[in-house]
Amino acid sequence: MRVVIAGVAGVGKSTVLEYVSKRSQYDVVNYGTLMFEMAKEIGIAKDRDELRKMNVDTQINLQKKASSAIGKMDNVIVDTHMAIKSPRGYLPGLPEWVLRELKISSFFLIEADSPLILYRRRRDKTRNRDTDTLEEIMEHQQVNRAFAVAYSVYTGATVTFVNNPEGKPEEAGEKIARALTGGE
Amino acid sequence: MRVVIAGVAGVGKSTVLEYVSKRSQYDVVNYGTLMFEMAKEIGIAKDRDELRKMNVDTQINLQKKASSAIGKMDNVIVDTHMAIKSPRGYLPGLPEWVLRELKISSFFLIEADSPLILYRRRRDKTRNRDTDTLEEIMEHQQVNRAFAVAYSVYTGATVTFVNNPEGKPEEAGEKIARALTGGE
Amino acid sequence: MRVVIAGVAGVGKSTVLEYVSKRSQYDVVNYGTLMFEMAKEIGIAKDRDELRKMNVDTQINLQKKASSAIGKMDNVIVDTHMAIKSPRGYLPGLPEWVLRELKISSFFLIEADSPLILYRRRRDKTRNRDTDTLEEIMEHQQVNRAFAVAYSVYTGATVTFVNNPEGKPEEAGEKIARALTGGE
Repeated sequence: MRVVIAGVAGVGKSTVLEYVSKRSQYDVVNYGTLMFEMAKEIGIAKDRDELRKMNVDTQINLQKKASSAIGKMDNVIVDTHMAIKSPRGYLPGLPEWVLRELKISSFFLIEADSPLILYRRRRDKTRNRDTDTLEEIMEHQQVNRAFAVAYSVYTGATVTFVNNPEGKPEEAGEKIARALTGGE
Repeated sequence: MRVVIAGVAGVGKSTVLEYVSKRSQYDVVNYGTLMFEMAKEIGIAKDRDELRKMNVDTQINLQKKASSAIGKMDNVIVDTHMAIKSPRGYLPGLPEWVLRELKISSFFLIEADSPLILYRRRRDKTRNRDTDTLEEIMEHQQVNRAFAVAYSVYTGATVTFVNNPEGKPEEAGEKIARALTGGE
Repeated sequence: MRVVIAGVAGVGKSTVLEYVSKRSQYDVVNYGTLMFEMAKEIGIAKDRDELRKMNVDTQINLQKKASSAIGKMDNVIVDTHMAIKSPRGYLPGLPEWVLRELKISSFFLIEADSPLILYRRRRDKTRNRDTDTLEEIMEHQQVNRAFAVAYSVYTGATVTFVNNPEGKPEEAGEKIARALTGGE
């Protein structure tokens, strides 16, 4: 079984992922990192920036390669984005050709109140995070939901919105872990 | 012509369906019931519970069989769900392989104010209905809209949101009946 | 590259389109007009009304013809609708068979506050515009977003929501033009 866990920057995804991974038999695979490592291996990118600047066809080919590799793994959490905010607009994190290969059975979208996310981003000085306004964060979270639903129709997979309030990542993690293990 | 009419539990769907069926030349087919009857016929399920516990592949096969049967019927209202709320998250009521077979021309989503739905569910003691909170009912109705739209892109079918306020099911029914008969 | 620019009636699309077209190397093609011209050329429709009343199969064939023609053009803005409000419900402006041919790389949805749109429609006495209520305009704009996202999953194209407040169409236009030209 393969599942996707996504959420906007500042939603607290990494802490939740850690918890879920510990509580379940699932390993976490970061989709972007895997794509980059594959690009490095075949010698077409030395850093992430080069990856981003590649032409669309090369990127799509890399996406297919990475997706096909993940599609063969078992009990894997794919750490990726529902919608990627780019200067050209929202990009689907899982376009059709990626979905076909990944064969996902569940999409989990981690959410939090947008003002809390804004606060977390401002507080986080170590990371060069975007300067989205509150309205933009709200929009991104809303758009993520719509993307998650569209992915679900393609794949027949379930969709779950998981609230991650401040200070209780284990509650969000527990909710996901229970869905993964099928138990109580 | 085949259409889908859906809506969350407590939205008053059955009364509206009755009205539409009387006012139009359309018969109502309950998708879940048809699936179960097919499963019973081929001897793989004795009750609904067994149907639910079947492995995914068997369920998908049954879905395809039921959808293919409905896809050959004329002037039929398919009584089903946009999104099914399961312990693993929202499941698409009409995943891709179902949509392809059904060849739906219109999706109608019956909606009501979420507090009204909550009240109707609490009031209804004869049915063992879920214990969703107000927020969960709101989320389910919002998610249903997103699923309806995604189905529409797949199929080219129209989408209509039909409000069903307390005490006026014939208004909601009339709106759908008019759309079905193409008249005034 | 081909992009779609859409928005409900009264959102101020034509002024924005003019601006974008001037600022970029893109020509504007109105999808409905192209379909009608093709229908006229092959002698199956004398006016727009005849086009609307055609049977579904003929309309789909015309849509495919128009889409295939646009799919061969370069640097083109397709002026069309995310969701068309019809008496039978919302129709997808870009159903699957249209999307496949158009090969769109970006969807831009022009939006404005719904009360402003209502006001603009009421003010506009020269055009026989629909009589949507405020709630209906809000719903149409919300539905347009969901359609835009579903189109994006199909195509891998970006989605951008562009706010067009009163009196500043050049700001909305500039935002789109910048995304098209990839510059600042």
